[in-house]
Amino acid sequence: MKKILLLGAGRSATVLIQYLLSNATAYNWEVSIGDVSVDHLAEQVQVYPQPRTFNFDVQNEAQRNAEIGAAQVVISMLPAMFHPVVAQTCLALGKHLVTASYVPPQIRELHAEAQAKGLTFLMECGLDPGIDHMSAMRIIHQIKEQGGTITSFKSFTGGLMAPESDNNPWHYKFTWNPRNVILAGQGTAKYIENGTNKYIPYPQLFRRTEAFQVEGFGAFDGYANRDSLSYREPYGLQDIPTMLRGTLRRPGYCQAWQVLVQLGLTDDSYLLEDANRMTYRQLVESFLPATLPGVSLKERVATYVGLSAEAEELRLVEWTGLLDDVPIGLEQATPAQALEKLLVQKWKLSPGDKDMIVMLHQFEYELHGELKRLTSSLVVTGDDKVHTAMAKTVGLPLGIAVKHLLEGKLHTRGVVVPLQADLYEPILAELEQYGICFTEREE
Amino acid sequence: MKKILLLGAGRSATVLIQYLLSNATAYNWEVSIGDVSVDHLAEQVQVYPQPRTFNFDVQNEAQRNAEIGAAQVVISMLPAMFHPVVAQTCLALGKHLVTASYVPPQIRELHAEAQAKGLTFLMECGLDPGIDHMSAMRIIHQIKEQGGTITSFKSFTGGLMAPESDNNPWHYKFTWNPRNVILAGQGTAKYIENGTNKYIPYPQLFRRTEAFQVEGFGAFDGYANRDSLSYREPYGLQDIPTMLRGTLRRPGYCQAWQVLVQLGLTDDSYLLEDANRMTYRQLVESFLPATLPGVSLKERVATYVGLSAEAEELRLVEWTGLLDDVPIGLEQATPAQALEKLLVQKWKLSPGDKDMIVMLHQFEYELHGELKRLTSSLVVTGDDKVHTAMAKTVGLPLGIAVKHLLEGKLHTRGVVVPLQADLYEPILAELEQYGICFTEREE
Repeated sequence: MKKILLLGAGRSATVLIQYLLSNATAYNWEVSIGDVSVDHLAEQVQVYPQPRTFNFDVQNEAQRNAEIGAAQVVISMLPAMFHPVVAQTCLALGKHLVTASYVPPQIRELHAEAQAKGLTFLMECGLDPGIDHMSAMRIIHQIKEQGGTITSFKSFTGGLMAPESDNNPWHYKFTWNPRNVILAGQGTAKYIENGTNKYIPYPQLFRRTEAFQVEGFGAFDGYANRDSLSYREPYGLQDIPTMLRGTLRRPGYCQAWQVLVQLGLTDDSYLLEDANRMTYRQLVESFLPATLPGVSLKERVATYVGLSAEAEELRLVEWTGLLDDVPIGLEQATPAQALEKLLVQKWKLSPGDKDMIVMLHQFEYELHGELKRLTSSLVVTGDDKVHTAMAKTVGLPLGIAVKHLLEGKLHTRGVVVPLQADLYEPILAELEQYGICFTEREE
Repeated sequence: MKKILLLGAGRSATVLIQYLLSNATAYNWEVSIGDVSVDHLAEQVQVYPQPRTFNFDVQNEAQRNAEIGAAQVVISMLPAMFHPVVAQTCLALGKHLVTASYVPPQIRELHAEAQAKGLTFLMECGLDPGIDHMSAMRIIHQIKEQGGTITSFKSFTGGLMAPESDNNPWHYKFTWNPRNVILAGQGTAKYIENGTNKYIPYPQLFRRTEAFQVEGFGAFDGYANRDSLSYREPYGLQDIPTMLRGTLRRPGYCQAWQVLVQLGLTDDSYLLEDANRMTYRQLVESFLPATLPGVSLKERVATYVGLSAEAEELRLVEWTGLLDDVPIGLEQATPAQALEKLLVQKWKLSPGDKDMIVMLHQFEYELHGELKRLTSSLVVTGDDKVHTAMAKTVGLPLGIAVKHLLEGKLHTRGVVVPLQADLYEPILAELEQYGICFTEREE
């Protein structure tokens, strides 16, 4: 029996668990799943060979050592902050590690040691980071092999709602950590355009969007991620004149979110003086200059951000309930925490809801003196509220990677990211069997 | 001989040094002055009984102990970050301490010990904090003694240029730490207005100004300081419906500064990718969306921030040289550091320049059922580039406080701020002899 240990079994882990269990008999796997609480797993796993599940506390050193010590491969879907301690333990006990998170510096520096011990620490092997890297690198390698020179690469991913479940004016519901959505983009976005480094300060980010169309799925807006520059080197695009990575939303979202940013509602840096006695209406009031008699709150917000009260943005803001005299209901809160509490209720998935992952790569390249454009897009729809597109696209690459590792088909050792063909090819190939296929269009 | 030790003798210390030396014979003082470098002092002190001057390194424990140990009162005009270690040494060696800086938590917690040892650590005894507290408290106490209830208190201070030296379109030159001016307002400003706590995020701060007139000196704009709420309790105004402390600039400054904030030029949180190869024009370019052919940089900046290219704001921005192809000339720089380097050249005092301090308190109060308004204002003009209004208003309160302390007329012990009549009355009275007088106007 080959022993697989999955640490962390939240809502993005459902499809990974399904993958592991449905392959367990054929590949002779024994699957153990540890999470802070495992009660929610009973329902998910009933049709499969029963895995061992247990309450896991990553800070409990004895348990960590015992569980990791008993496995051959560890998959960590714990919050990213815990990955360094998991990686340290894997290194000490000689175990492979696979995650869907960015490589933090504390793991990067384990590379030589992991390599020396014959271990693979495969990171950034989920959706974004993960499928974005793999699918982009496949095209980059193809263009280079043809002798082309890439002049522009823009790549966007969004976790959105499938058209049939897209039934609120923001065209958005939470399929991922709400706090990360509220705080998205804070800091300064950096990218390069026509050879000029560009910086977008957070207060401008959501008005600096770019519009895209995906055939059959309509229009999207993309806003820039925090750091597009640091990907040039790993992608082998050191001298590329234009490179931008970003996030997709449906049109309307970014424009209305910009109103919340301008007001100050996404600020997480200070506690409100008396959140426990405040309504959302009063919260909005606290960001506006003193009241003018006879002017509605909605009109005052509109004037403050330079819009008319009839603007679509204001309709979206009003829809959230921010202008209502409803208590925040938190003992203490930053503006961002208060906003999160409201939106968690408003942007909640309903039982039948299906989510949708959209990924879009846009390349411009020169080939034999000709300028070419290539668009590659991926749309994945969830089956239901549990088997979401998010869970498929994060979980399947992890599961496939683990399979190849245990089958002895993945030979790269050390701390690695799936940027090389021998890593991404088999994963992309198997993903296609699950309907995760890119559509390419040349212009 | 009573021994006074002054630590830190930068450009704000000139008038304090003059005060100490001109009173030294009459009051039997021996004055020692330590600074990182004391060469610049020779010229300043030549007409007075010669003080002892020495190169001082606050981090040198032996020197710190020896110098503080030999004094009776220590005045610290060192950067505020060094005050805790100076205060610790004063406490250990039983010496009084006087500074013009805010009380940091590490000094606040020395209160009981200092009190037990019969020591006075008088903090916030310069201009702002200092004269602002003293002059406000005198009025607050007067109104309360009459039986009045204060409903609104707004207080603003600005370090500006005297009308005869006000000869650039920003109406501003550096008379204080340039870095602090560049970073001013970062964070969220908090105040209270009509009983509602108000928050102004930094990106909105310089457009949320309030206009004021000071008789004989024209118009000013005030923007809110970071924290006006925490002063309610020390001022005895716990339940005041409106309280705001802020900073004054001449009209035009805040509006044009807002353009720099919107672009991202005041950001100090990241290093530019290649500051060493960049011109200011390129720096501005890096904050704008991609070039449109045939549109000037000035027009593009104007459009980006929602102004016309003919707007006065753009004239001020252009005057700084930000749109010129002049190298930044720094090996490494944050946007804020690059901006500081440019403005230090542009906002430099010329030899004959006179600065001007303006302070303005606006009170509204109810007295016997009547609503009253009281404005108290102070304007102090510098004599020249050395004996600035800044140096007078920061230095004289410190000097006067030290005199009273050494004459045995200042009895409050522990860590104190000049909010009580027995502290502020003698200082305000003597300041009047130096022409530092407030003008009150009742409405």
